[in-house]
Amino acid sequence: MKYQGRHYRSIWFEAGKVKIIDQTRLPHEFVIVELDSLETAAEAIQAMWVRGAPLIGATGAYGMGLAMQQNTSDSALESAYHTLFQTRPTAINLRWALDQLQQALLDTPDEGRAQRAFELAAEICDEDVKNNSSIGEHGLKLIQAAAENKPVGEAVNILTHCNAGWLATVDWGTALAPIYKAHEAGIAVHVWVDETRPRNQGASLTAWELVSHGIPHHVVTDNAGGYLMQTDQVDLCIVGTDRTTAAGDVCNKIGTYLKALAAYDNHVPFCVALPGPTIDWRIQSGLEEVPIEARDEREVTHISGRDQGGTVTEIQLVPDGVSAFNPAFDITPAKYVTTLITERGLCEASAEALAVLYPDQVQ
Amino acid sequence: MKYQGRHYRSIWFEAGKVKIIDQTRLPHEFVIVELDSLETAAEAIQAMWVRGAPLIGATGAYGMGLAMQQNTSDSALESAYHTLFQTRPTAINLRWALDQLQQALLDTPDEGRAQRAFELAAEICDEDVKNNSSIGEHGLKLIQAAAENKPVGEAVNILTHCNAGWLATVDWGTALAPIYKAHEAGIAVHVWVDETRPRNQGASLTAWELVSHGIPHHVVTDNAGGYLMQTDQVDLCIVGTDRTTAAGDVCNKIGTYLKALAAYDNHVPFCVALPGPTIDWRIQSGLEEVPIEARDEREVTHISGRDQGGTVTEIQLVPDGVSAFNPAFDITPAKYVTTLITERGLCEASAEALAVLYPDQVQ
Repeated sequence: MKYQGRHYRSIWFEAGKVKIIDQTRLPHEFVIVELDSLETAAEAIQAMWVRGAPLIGATGAYGMGLAMQQNTSDSALESAYHTLFQTRPTAINLRWALDQLQQALLDTPDEGRAQRAFELAAEICDEDVKNNSSIGEHGLKLIQAAAENKPVGEAVNILTHCNAGWLATVDWGTALAPIYKAHEAGIAVHVWVDETRPRNQGASLTAWELVSHGIPHHVVTDNAGGYLMQTDQVDLCIVGTDRTTAAGDVCNKIGTYLKALAAYDNHVPFCVALPGPTIDWRIQSGLEEVPIEARDEREVTHISGRDQGGTVTEIQLVPDGVSAFNPAFDITPAKYVTTLITERGLCEASAEALAVLYPDQVQ
Repeated sequence: MKYQGRHYRSIWFEAGKVKIIDQTRLPHEFVIVELDSLETAAEAIQAMWVRGAPLIGATGAYGMGLAMQQNTSDSALESAYHTLFQTRPTAINLRWALDQLQQALLDTPDEGRAQRAFELAAEICDEDVKNNSSIGEHGLKLIQAAAENKPVGEAVNILTHCNAGWLATVDWGTALAPIYKAHEAGIAVHVWVDETRPRNQGASLTAWELVSHGIPHHVVTDNAGGYLMQTDQVDLCIVGTDRTTAAGDVCNKIGTYLKALAAYDNHVPFCVALPGPTIDWRIQSGLEEVPIEARDEREVTHISGRDQGGTVTEIQLVPDGVSAFNPAFDITPAKYVTTLITERGLCEASAEALAVLYPDQVQ
């Protein structure tokens, strides 16, 4: 998507080097980092210069290519796999991408390994872009339908939580893809951006994406969505997901569930955008089967931003002696989800509907 | 309540001077300010050194006393009334307190006016403390009942939103009064403190109160409450209110409604603590009849805290060019409120139940 009028992906290959945007510096600084070795690729993942499951997978794949530029031996391949895997061992897409690369490279003669790795990494990226573009096209239908129900000239108001935009993928994003497609189709949209405490991915990354792309928006506190829905200021909600069960229960950033409850109470459609690989076909009940990680309490007690002198500074929000608790995700039961937006089309959040869309996946 | 082992009210009279705690300096600094004139009393209200309806009313009353120390004439009385009223013209308790003082002082000879004003201000304070203590005693019954349903030794987990503690009143608070009473009665309690964006009254003021008083707690993001209730980590919610309708609809800090929805969905009692004067007997429907103010967007885009050097610093959270929207309150419909905790006892959130408790008030 666009920044300062130029189109970017979140990762790209240029003159033998891999380039990324250091997302830890956003939204206050736009810094492109060159990954020129296995080590810098691993650091990019570990230090969260890149984030979002698809982008982490793509970075891992490119990291294998960079490793092969340095040393094409089987042992170097093995070692690169482990170095990259250890950066985020719970990231499903990372393991998937590394497995793909490892398999293919073992079948490739040493001298062709670097080139083959970069080709495969590019394919993984293109596949992600294609899937997200499809999610965008399918979700666009929902926005079009909402637009048709509004007086001419009034924008469709969409509430989103966290960042499921292009920065979290290779391009387009998931939850934001339909919004980008609508904007490109000339449909007036306005986005309510939940700031998404504690890490503020909404106020920083989603807001940055929308400003950069010229899409009208307002950042709101996570507390505000209920009021906005009570007062008919939201036409639909679209969020992403980290993991959705085969029955349609949605695990997503903490606070998603509260917005789904408000949407349900106020008859606002609550939509979840997701690529097929996000569905965990092995499990049914989100509440019983998805473990929720608790993260560092410092994410709640401290926050960073730009001070008056322009320096990015961390400040303490709470008095000394205060404890905090920081669960990272919650579960939105399928009954509160109106529509799943997948790369294969729209469906209800139910085991039956998902099975129809993914007959090849259901277990 | 207690700070560093000593008991404080939020306002008190000492050796001819009025003293308050500058709440804009909390939670990082505890600064007592002496109000020695009408002007400093007015500034205390206007600059929000004091906040919370009952405390604003009490400060206004003491301000009249300070004005009478300076000049006891009728015109000075009139002028003091207007100076103080203009500081927060929408604060119902302020007008009520000033009206009481004006009436009484006009009936008092000049030479007795200062003393009479301070007596009346002290009465207003004592009455507030008495009412809040009663709210605490009635609410204590709910906590006791919850404690009886828990395994011996396990704390009762109470979630609260915003600050409805002693800092917002003269003492005890409203939502926190039952918690203080339970703590004093030796019942183990643990409080989940919503940080309450955008002004963070939970993370700063409520957390400060609980740390100071030695009550176990954890600050959580406003997003976390749904997850906590889904996972049986909340036994009851207690919040305050700015205004409750005759039918029991509750207007309170933005985000309250989302917690009420989660409580309803998870069968957690949702209780609202309120003194009788907070009930607006003239209106029934919160959604239709209570106007919601939108505050400065800067409260969302910027935040203050203590930097590493110990200096209180303001930082910008969003990228340049971002717009924000900042509604201050929302409405929790009566159907989602389990119990109202008043100074006269507990009741359902309904016109009928409120009329039984306040036969002298219902219109």
